[in-house]
Amino acid sequence: MQNVKSLITTRSITIDKLKKYIKMANFFYDSSKINNNRYLQKYPGHILGLVFYEPSTRTMASFHAAMSRLGGTSIVIQPETSSVKKGETLEDTIRTMGIYTDAIVLRHFDKNSSELAASVTDKAVINGGDGNGEHPTQALLDIYTIYRELGKRVFTETIKVLFVGDLKNSRTIHSLIYLLELFPNIQYIFLSPEKLQMPDEIKLELKNPSRVCTSYCSGIIEEADVIYMTRIQKERFNSNFEYYEVLKDNFVLDETNMSRAKPKVIVMHPLPRGDEISKEVDKDSRAVYFKQMEYGVYMRMAILDDILSK
Amino acid sequence: MQNVKSLITTRSITIDKLKKYIKMANFFYDSSKINNNRYLQKYPGHILGLVFYEPSTRTMASFHAAMSRLGGTSIVIQPETSSVKKGETLEDTIRTMGIYTDAIVLRHFDKNSSELAASVTDKAVINGGDGNGEHPTQALLDIYTIYRELGKRVFTETIKVLFVGDLKNSRTIHSLIYLLELFPNIQYIFLSPEKLQMPDEIKLELKNPSRVCTSYCSGIIEEADVIYMTRIQKERFNSNFEYYEVLKDNFVLDETNMSRAKPKVIVMHPLPRGDEISKEVDKDSRAVYFKQMEYGVYMRMAILDDILSK
Amino acid sequence: MQNVKSLITTRSITIDKLKKYIKMANFFYDSSKINNNRYLQKYPGHILGLVFYEPSTRTMASFHAAMSRLGGTSIVIQPETSSVKKGETLEDTIRTMGIYTDAIVLRHFDKNSSELAASVTDKAVINGGDGNGEHPTQALLDIYTIYRELGKRVFTETIKVLFVGDLKNSRTIHSLIYLLELFPNIQYIFLSPEKLQMPDEIKLELKNPSRVCTSYCSGIIEEADVIYMTRIQKERFNSNFEYYEVLKDNFVLDETNMSRAKPKVIVMHPLPRGDEISKEVDKDSRAVYFKQMEYGVYMRMAILDDILSK
Repeated sequence: MQNVKSLITTRSITIDKLKKYIKMANFFYDSSKINNNRYLQKYPGHILGLVFYEPSTRTMASFHAAMSRLGGTSIVIQPETSSVKKGETLEDTIRTMGIYTDAIVLRHFDKNSSELAASVTDKAVINGGDGNGEHPTQALLDIYTIYRELGKRVFTETIKVLFVGDLKNSRTIHSLIYLLELFPNIQYIFLSPEKLQMPDEIKLELKNPSRVCTSYCSGIIEEADVIYMTRIQKERFNSNFEYYEVLKDNFVLDETNMSRAKPKVIVMHPLPRGDEISKEVDKDSRAVYFKQMEYGVYMRMAILDDILSK
Repeated sequence: MQNVKSLITTRSITIDKLKKYIKMANFFYDSSKINNNRYLQKYPGHILGLVFYEPSTRTMASFHAAMSRLGGTSIVIQPETSSVKKGETLEDTIRTMGIYTDAIVLRHFDKNSSELAASVTDKAVINGGDGNGEHPTQALLDIYTIYRELGKRVFTETIKVLFVGDLKNSRTIHSLIYLLELFPNIQYIFLSPEKLQMPDEIKLELKNPSRVCTSYCSGIIEEADVIYMTRIQKERFNSNFEYYEVLKDNFVLDETNMSRAKPKVIVMHPLPRGDEISKEVDKDSRAVYFKQMEYGVYMRMAILDDILSK
Repeated sequence: MQNVKSLITTRSITIDKLKKYIKMANFFYDSSKINNNRYLQKYPGHILGLVFYEPSTRTMASFHAAMSRLGGTSIVIQPETSSVKKGETLEDTIRTMGIYTDAIVLRHFDKNSSELAASVTDKAVINGGDGNGEHPTQALLDIYTIYRELGKRVFTETIKVLFVGDLKNSRTIHSLIYLLELFPNIQYIFLSPEKLQMPDEIKLELKNPSRVCTSYCSGIIEEADVIYMTRIQKERFNSNFEYYEVLKDNFVLDETNMSRAKPKVIVMHPLPRGDEISKEVDKDSRAVYFKQMEYGVYMRMAILDDILSK
């Protein structure tokens, strides 16, 4: 009985749908900035369920903020303080929240948990990250950031995107690539440690052949229009030593690297970050990972608006 | 100094008061469904304190939702993140929340905790479950479910209610029985493991003699107008084996049992559930435990309205 | 880039600013009580970030309540359920919340954490307690309590303030003393165990010499216009025995002590309390520690209003 408005994967998003999301995000952005009409109370009394089985700052707080700006309220459910602790199944928890709320954002450690959730409630379920599966709302805010920063040329020109980090497990990147493929000509460079490479099944789906590096390859910083960094989790290595060796050799973005990058490159990161970006890069105007969070509020307002509107 | 509007036990609820609650719950139900005026903003700026010393999904989230639909906001206090961790007494925590809020819902592991709480604040305290004591708002939503599903005949005819599960410790059932006794003619069947039987002091208060079974008794499924299931906590048995033996022999409601039940029986459960109801029963239209949650929001709106209105 | 409206320390508050805070707190108090216009919805859609690395009942709940009464909403961030658990720095967490909210209240175990936080966001940061540093909003509500209870004479007459308890580590008292020094003539009596004495660097800044006692000194209860009690943490002593010895000898405020105090003395406590005040004192009308919490909501509304207004 999945609600047609559920957002489980970016694979189901068409170019027209993407343009509609961007248009609405622009509308909320402009309402905030230009008209000084920052706080639209479009959905008073509406309730968003934030069901988070894993920790989150940005996804949870920005959906909460987006819902507040739309005039609604949020109810947070976390395992430690809910009936999950008494052994309640995900399905029953979602059925419950589906009755109390108008839409649900779910973060869960199991791949396909959002799909399962959407099958047991008639309210829209928004996938807020499901294990190493997908994270479609992050991907939408990422693509909105790319659109805002690079402009309309993304719809016509070739864009080179350098992805760096844990490309095997990053649900964010997987979801983003499905959206990038809606653009006419994206060229990918994948830079990751050997054991954290982009899965072949994703590479095989791309329109263009991708360039793959497991240590620094010449020219990749210089060529990139977008540098998308992700966190490498220390736990994935046998020792701190091994982790820092990998980071040191190839993957720390610092001022030196940035000096070789294009003047109009943008540096993105879904955050939280570890040691893969030097703090000195924060001051570089090409680092847009904090702006990315701001764009995220407007995109999440657009996503909620799409769901809550008739 | 207990506020006259505090709701500590269902023992103090008269038939007139019960009818008033039902009338208001109906009003909120109809406003949502019929008038499409779902979100009444009757109490803007009012604040509900949700003080939960034990985990909860339904009680907490549905009060939160009810308060939001009434236009107010909720403040959640839980032990791990509050001064309870610094050793603050329940009394001081309640005094504090009584100052910041307009009403308090308290869930606490001690019997009589709500009575104690109500004695130290002049705001209304709603008992959201006190140990193995009472759970009056669950009982009110249960009785509202029975009324909605069986109709006005509950006020005139004989109704047979089969209670199944942990009848010794279920605060929900104890509170519900006090309300059922307001109806003219309830006949009870109590089915529970030997060590989890309905306490004698409650049975002695009933207008009608009750039928007691410690394993399946013939005819009880066939006769029941209401089957009220509760969760049996594994922890109450010496081993998983013993738990499943008990469940297997007598207490799992499945399609086979349902095929012998009345065509108009209703199956209720306060949730969360364990293994005592087969998932296949969910599809049976006589299973109303999910509707029960929805009725719960309207009944809790009625309870809050009773407290917040002048 | 610290926002000029950030509130990090009471040292930066002038007498004019203090009077402005009191005036606004009075306005919110009167709106609630006299005009029966309790719930002002002055800042609809505005969002307050409550970032609490340490447990809190009063600071968190009263800011939440104050924001609700002003028409806004609050987003709570706590370490266990946020990216803090993934190792995110305080700076990145604050940058994030600065993007999602209109102002941030921060409680953190490190001294100077609020100053650090205010340096990385352009939103106002309110210090909600930073280690053994300061707690300016508690100090403001304390001074408002003193003003409300003692009246305008605080601006002209000599006031004797007896501080009792852990004067070394109490961030609340340190912040309060900076504010009390704005009044023309405060005389201090400091009563504390030897190892928990008021730091010399604070005593040296006072306009008047202070009287110091490490066990009960004659006349101090009789002379005081304000008795300000604080909790002594058991953990600071080698044994429960040592703790209770210290408490027993000198520092428990009971009916006997109160019988020797001025008829118009006020007894304050920031709460939560331990065993340093007998419960019997609660009934004494000179004990204002519960009224103090109520004044706190109005003062925190004033603080938020100061920040959110143009």
